Amino acid sequence: MDPQARAPYNETMNVKEIEEKIDTLSKLKIQQMFSSDFLLSWDKTQDEIRGVLTAAEILRDMRRANISAKIFDSGLAVAIFRDKSTRTRFSFLSAANLLGLAAQDLEETKTQIAHGETVRETANMISFLTEVIGIRDDMYLGYGHSYMKEVSAAVREGHREGVLPQIPTVVNLQCDQDHPTQSLSDLLHLIRHFGSLEALKGKKIAMTWAYSPSYGKPLSVPQGVIGLMSRLGMEVHLAYPQGYSLIPEIEKLAEENSRAAGGTFSRSHSMAEAFAGADIVYPKSWAPYEVMQRRTGLLKAGDSKGLEKLEAECLELNKRHLDWECDEQLMKRTNDALYLHCLPADISGVSCQHGEVAASVFERFRLDTYRQAGYKPYVIAAMMLLSKAKDPTALLCGILKQRAPRLADSG
Amino acid sequence: MDPQARAPYNETMNVKEIEEKIDTLSKLKIQQMFSSDFLLSWDKTQDEIRGVLTAAEILRDMRRANISAKIFDSGLAVAIFRDKSTRTRFSFLSAANLLGLAAQDLEETKTQIAHGETVRETANMISFLTEVIGIRDDMYLGYGHSYMKEVSAAVREGHREGVLPQIPTVVNLQCDQDHPTQSLSDLLHLIRHFGSLEALKGKKIAMTWAYSPSYGKPLSVPQGVIGLMSRLGMEVHLAYPQGYSLIPEIEKLAEENSRAAGGTFSRSHSMAEAFAGADIVYPKSWAPYEVMQRRTGLLKAGDSKGLEKLEAECLELNKRHLDWECDEQLMKRTNDALYLHCLPADISGVSCQHGEVAASVFERFRLDTYRQAGYKPYVIAAMMLLSKAKDPTALLCGILKQRAPRLADSG
Amino acid sequence: MDPQARAPYNETMNVKEIEEKIDTLSKLKIQQMFSSDFLLSWDKTQDEIRGVLTAAEILRDMRRANISAKIFDSGLAVAIFRDKSTRTRFSFLSAANLLGLAAQDLEETKTQIAHGETVRETANMISFLTEVIGIRDDMYLGYGHSYMKEVSAAVREGHREGVLPQIPTVVNLQCDQDHPTQSLSDLLHLIRHFGSLEALKGKKIAMTWAYSPSYGKPLSVPQGVIGLMSRLGMEVHLAYPQGYSLIPEIEKLAEENSRAAGGTFSRSHSMAEAFAGADIVYPKSWAPYEVMQRRTGLLKAGDSKGLEKLEAECLELNKRHLDWECDEQLMKRTNDALYLHCLPADISGVSCQHGEVAASVFERFRLDTYRQAGYKPYVIAAMMLLSKAKDPTALLCGILKQRAPRLADSG
Repeated sequence: MDPQARAPYNETMNVKEIEEKIDTLSKLKIQQMFSSDFLLSWDKTQDEIRGVLTAAEILRDMRRANISAKIFDSGLAVAIFRDKSTRTRFSFLSAANLLGLAAQDLEETKTQIAHGETVRETANMISFLTEVIGIRDDMYLGYGHSYMKEVSAAVREGHREGVLPQIPTVVNLQCDQDHPTQSLSDLLHLIRHFGSLEALKGKKIAMTWAYSPSYGKPLSVPQGVIGLMSRLGMEVHLAYPQGYSLIPEIEKLAEENSRAAGGTFSRSHSMAEAFAGADIVYPKSWAPYEVMQRRTGLLKAGDSKGLEKLEAECLELNKRHLDWECDEQLMKRTNDALYLHCLPADISGVSCQHGEVAASVFERFRLDTYRQAGYKPYVIAAMMLLSKAKDPTALLCGILKQRAPRLADSG
Repeated sequence: MDPQARAPYNETMNVKEIEEKIDTLSKLKIQQMFSSDFLLSWDKTQDEIRGVLTAAEILRDMRRANISAKIFDSGLAVAIFRDKSTRTRFSFLSAANLLGLAAQDLEETKTQIAHGETVRETANMISFLTEVIGIRDDMYLGYGHSYMKEVSAAVREGHREGVLPQIPTVVNLQCDQDHPTQSLSDLLHLIRHFGSLEALKGKKIAMTWAYSPSYGKPLSVPQGVIGLMSRLGMEVHLAYPQGYSLIPEIEKLAEENSRAAGGTFSRSHSMAEAFAGADIVYPKSWAPYEVMQRRTGLLKAGDSKGLEKLEAECLELNKRHLDWECDEQLMKRTNDALYLHCLPADISGVSCQHGEVAASVFERFRLDTYRQAGYKPYVIAAMMLLSKAKDPTALLCGILKQRAPRLADSG
Repeated sequence: MDPQARAPYNETMNVKEIEEKIDTLSKLKIQQMFSSDFLLSWDKTQDEIRGVLTAAEILRDMRRANISAKIFDSGLAVAIFRDKSTRTRFSFLSAANLLGLAAQDLEETKTQIAHGETVRETANMISFLTEVIGIRDDMYLGYGHSYMKEVSAAVREGHREGVLPQIPTVVNLQCDQDHPTQSLSDLLHLIRHFGSLEALKGKKIAMTWAYSPSYGKPLSVPQGVIGLMSRLGMEVHLAYPQGYSLIPEIEKLAEENSRAAGGTFSRSHSMAEAFAGADIVYPKSWAPYEVMQRRTGLLKAGDSKGLEKLEAECLELNKRHLDWECDEQLMKRTNDALYLHCLPADISGVSCQHGEVAASVFERFRLDTYRQAGYKPYVIAAMMLLSKAKDPTALLCGILKQRAPRLADSG
C-alpha cells in the first residue's frame, strides 16, 4: 500500500510533487470540461476522467500542505438532495467550502416548489449567483438523470438569455443511472492502493450483490462501478442472484467498454465465482431492476397499497439470498483482495442480524472504507474546478505560487 | 429594450460605466440610510430610492465584470422567514454572500422561541455578530410590519446598552404592508426596459387583481407596487373586483403620491379598463382586505373551524371572477405592454386549470419575469451596503480600484 | 461596573490594550490545549481557564476595533445539536464565522444516521475538512459526555490512521455534566463586572434552584457553575429543595475545589440562606437528579407511559416549591447582588404565571443577562483558537499587526 495514503497532515509536503501533478494535468485534453456538467462518467473521455483524478489529487495535496485552494471570493453551491445523505452531503459542502463557495441546500418542502413552480423556473430563481448545483435524485428509475438534464437545460437557457451572469454547472451526486463522485473516489482509492492507474490493468474486480434486510437501495453504485472500471483494462466481474440485474443498457455498456479497453467483463449468479482470484471486491446490496421499475410505476400511480405489497414481496425475495454475504471464507478465495464499500454497510451482527458483510471482514477494512470515502470531497472539488476554470492549469499554478495559508499560523 | 439587459457575463465591461454610476451615487442625499432599516419604501426619500437602484446597478455591473464586492471579512446575515419562499430566500442569501456575510436561518421551531422567549430577547441573542436581519412576515394584517419594528427596536436598545458591538439593520423581505425588495426589483427591471427612470414618466401601469385557485395571497405586492410607482409621475391604475380592496390607507397614500409627483392614480373594477393603453401590466391575485382582516381575527382566536369556513367562502367568492385572467385579448388592448409578475404565477392550463395568466402570454414574457426576479439579489445587497457603509461612495471606489477578482482566473 | 462593558462599538480602541492582553496570554501554560478538546472545565488547568478568558477578551476587543480575526481561509465547524438551542447555536456559528470557518449543522434526521450508522463512522464521514465539532447532548444523564468522548476518539483514530488530514476538536456545547461555554461566559461577565478575576476572591455566589412550570431542565448549568466558580476562592453556596440534588460527584468536586482554592463551599435547602449577603445570585430551575436518572432508565426501556407518569409526578413535585422565586424581598437580603441567568428565564407574570424570577427583578437585570450571553461567541472562538493554533500568541500578534479590517470602510 502507498504509504502516503496513511500519512498524516504533512506540512512539509514537497511542493515539487504538486507541480508535477499540475504538469500532468496540463497535458490532458480537458478543455471541453469548461462550462460542462458532470452527469455520467461514460459521457467523459479518458483524459477527462484522468483530469478529475489528477485535479483531485492536487487539491488534496494542497490541503495537506496547508495551501489555500480558494479560487472563489463569493458565489453559491446549491445542493438539492431528494434522498437522505451524510457522506455525499458533507463531501459536497466541503468541496464548495474548499474552493470558496457557500453551500446552500434547496429544501423543497420549505420553498414554494410545492406551490406548483416548474423545475425550469426554480432552477433559474436559485441561480442568480450560483456557480454549481449538486443534485441527488436516485429514487426512481428513469427520473434522476432526466431531472438533472432538465435543470441544466433551464440554467443554460437562463444564461443564454441574459438571466444569469454565469452558467451554474450541474454535478450528479447520485442519479438512477450513475454515481460518478462515488465511482471516481473508489478509483482514486484503488490508484493509491495499487500505486497507479496503469497498475489496475488486468486486476480483477468483483462487483457483487449482497444481502441486506433493507429495501429499495439504488442501482447507481454498482452501475457506476462497472461503467467506470470497465474502461481501465480490468477484469470486471458482475454477480447477482437471478432477477437482480442492473439496467440492461448499462451492463451492455460495461461489456463494450471492456472490449474497447482490452479488459474483460463477465457475469455470474455466484458470489464464489466472482470472488475467485479477485484483487478487489465490492459486495453491496441493491434492489432488483424489475422491482425498481414496478416501484416507479406504482409511485406514479400513487398506489400506496401496491407499494407496501411490493416492499413486502421484495424483502421476502431478498431472504432467499441470505447466503450472499461477504464472509471470511469468501475472502479466502480472493487474491488477498481489497474490500470496498460506499458506506454505510449492513454489517452482520453489528448493524443488523444478517447483512452484506461479516463483522470481522468489515472491521479489517473499516479504516480503508473511511479512506475510500475521504477522496470524495476532492473529487467533487475537482469536478467543480474543471467546469469553472477556463484554464485550470494556469489557475492551479497561480494559487500554488501564491501559497496563501489555509490556516494562518500552521507553518 | 436595453441590449445590456440580455448581455451575458461580460468580462470586458467598461469600468468607466461603473465609475459614472458611483459618481451618480455620490450626488444623492443618502447619508440617513447609514444604520437605518429598510422597512417601507414610502419611508424613504426619492434620493434614497435612487440610491438603492444605483447601488444595485453598480453591484450587478461589478459582478458581471468579475470584480469582488466583498466588503465584509466576517459577520452574519440572519434570515427569519415566517412564510415559504424560494426566490426571496435565495436573493437574500446571495446578497449576503456577495458582500461577504454568512447567511443563517433562524428557524423558529428549532430554537427555544417556542419556549416562551420574547422577541426582544431573541433579537439580541442572534445578533452578537450579526450585521443584517432579513424578515418575511406577511401572513397577518397588522403584524408583519410591527414585528419588524419590534426586532429593530430590540437590537437598537442592545447596541445602545453595550450588548451588541454593531446595529444589525432590518431589511423587510415582505410584510403585511410592503414588499420593497420586490417593488424595487420591479422598478429596476422597468428602468432597464424603458431606458431610464425618467422615461417612466407618463407611462401607464396597470396593477390588477387576477383570478387564482389558491387562497390568502398577501396584499404586499400590489401595495408595494402602487406605493412606489405612484412616486414616479406614472399613470397608475389599480383594478380589482368589488370587495377585493387593498389596505385603504395605502390606496390613499398612492393617490397622494401621484398628485405630488405629477402623475395620476385611478381605480376601477374592470381589467379591460385597466389594460386599455397600458405600457406595463401586473396582473396578480390577492386575498380581499376584509377576508384578511377576518382571518387575522380568527387566527388570534384560534378558531380553526372558522378559518376553514372562511377559506371555503373565499375560494367560492374568487370563482365569480374567473374572467380576471390576463389573456391575449386583454393584452391587445394595451400599448404593447410589458407583463410583470413576482412569480410564481398561476398559469392557466399549466400550473392550474384557470389562473392569473394565459399560457401563451406567460410564455412570451417568461424570461422577462426571470430577469425581473434577477435584480432582487442586487437590490437587497444595495440595501445592506447603504445601511452598513458610512461612506458608500468611498467604499465602492475603493473596491473598484482594488479590482480583486471574484473568480480567480476568469480575467 | 466596568464602563467598557457598556461601551458601544469603539473603532479607536487602543491597540495597546490588546497587545497587553496578548502579552498576558503568552505567559500562560496553555501548550497542552493545542489539538485538545474542551469537554469539562474541571479537566483544564487554571492557566488554561485563564487562557480561554484572555483569548476571548482579545477576540472581543479586535472585533470592536474592526480588526479581522479570520485565521482560517476554509474549513468547516460542524454543529450537532441534540436539544433545542438559540443562544448556543448562534454563539457557535458566530464564533466559527469570526475565525473563518463555515458552520454546518449535522441534522441527524436528515442524514443516514437513522440508517444504522455508528457514531464512529459518521464522526469521520463529516470530518474530512472539519476543524471543530460542537456538540450539545444534555438530555440523558450518563450519555452526553460519553457521546462527546466517543466522537473525539473516532476522529482521533481517523487522524492517526490517515483518514483525516487534521484533528477536528470537540467543543462541549452542553452535556449532562457541564456547560463550559456557559460557565466561562458567566465568569467573563463577572470579571468585567467586578473588575478582575482576582476581585472575585471572597465574593459570595448563590447558585440556587428556582421554581419553573416546565419539566426536565438539565443539570449542567448549575454543575458547570459550581465546578468552575469553586476554583476561584469564592464563597460558593448551593441551595435546592430536598430531593433536587445535582450529580453527587460534581457537588463533591466543587467542595474539593473550594478547599484547594481557599474558598468555601456550602449547601442548604433555603433560598433565603443562600441569598444572605450574596454578591452574585444565579437562581435557575433544574430537574431533580433522581428524576433524571429514572427518566434515563425509562427512555432506554422505551416506556412512554412511565415517562408521562414521571413528568406529571415531577411537575406536581415542583409545585410544592412555588416559593423558590427570586423576588425583590430575597434580593434585599443580598449585598446588592448581580443577578445571573443563562436565559431564557421563566419570568413570573411574563413568560408564565409563577416562575424562577419576579418580573421587576428580571427587568432590572435584563440587559445584564444579555451582556452575560454576549461573551459566549468569544469564549467559543477562544476555545477553537487555542485548540487549532500551535502558537496562539504568535498568531494573534500576526493578525493584530496585519490589522485587516473586518468591514472594509468603517475606519
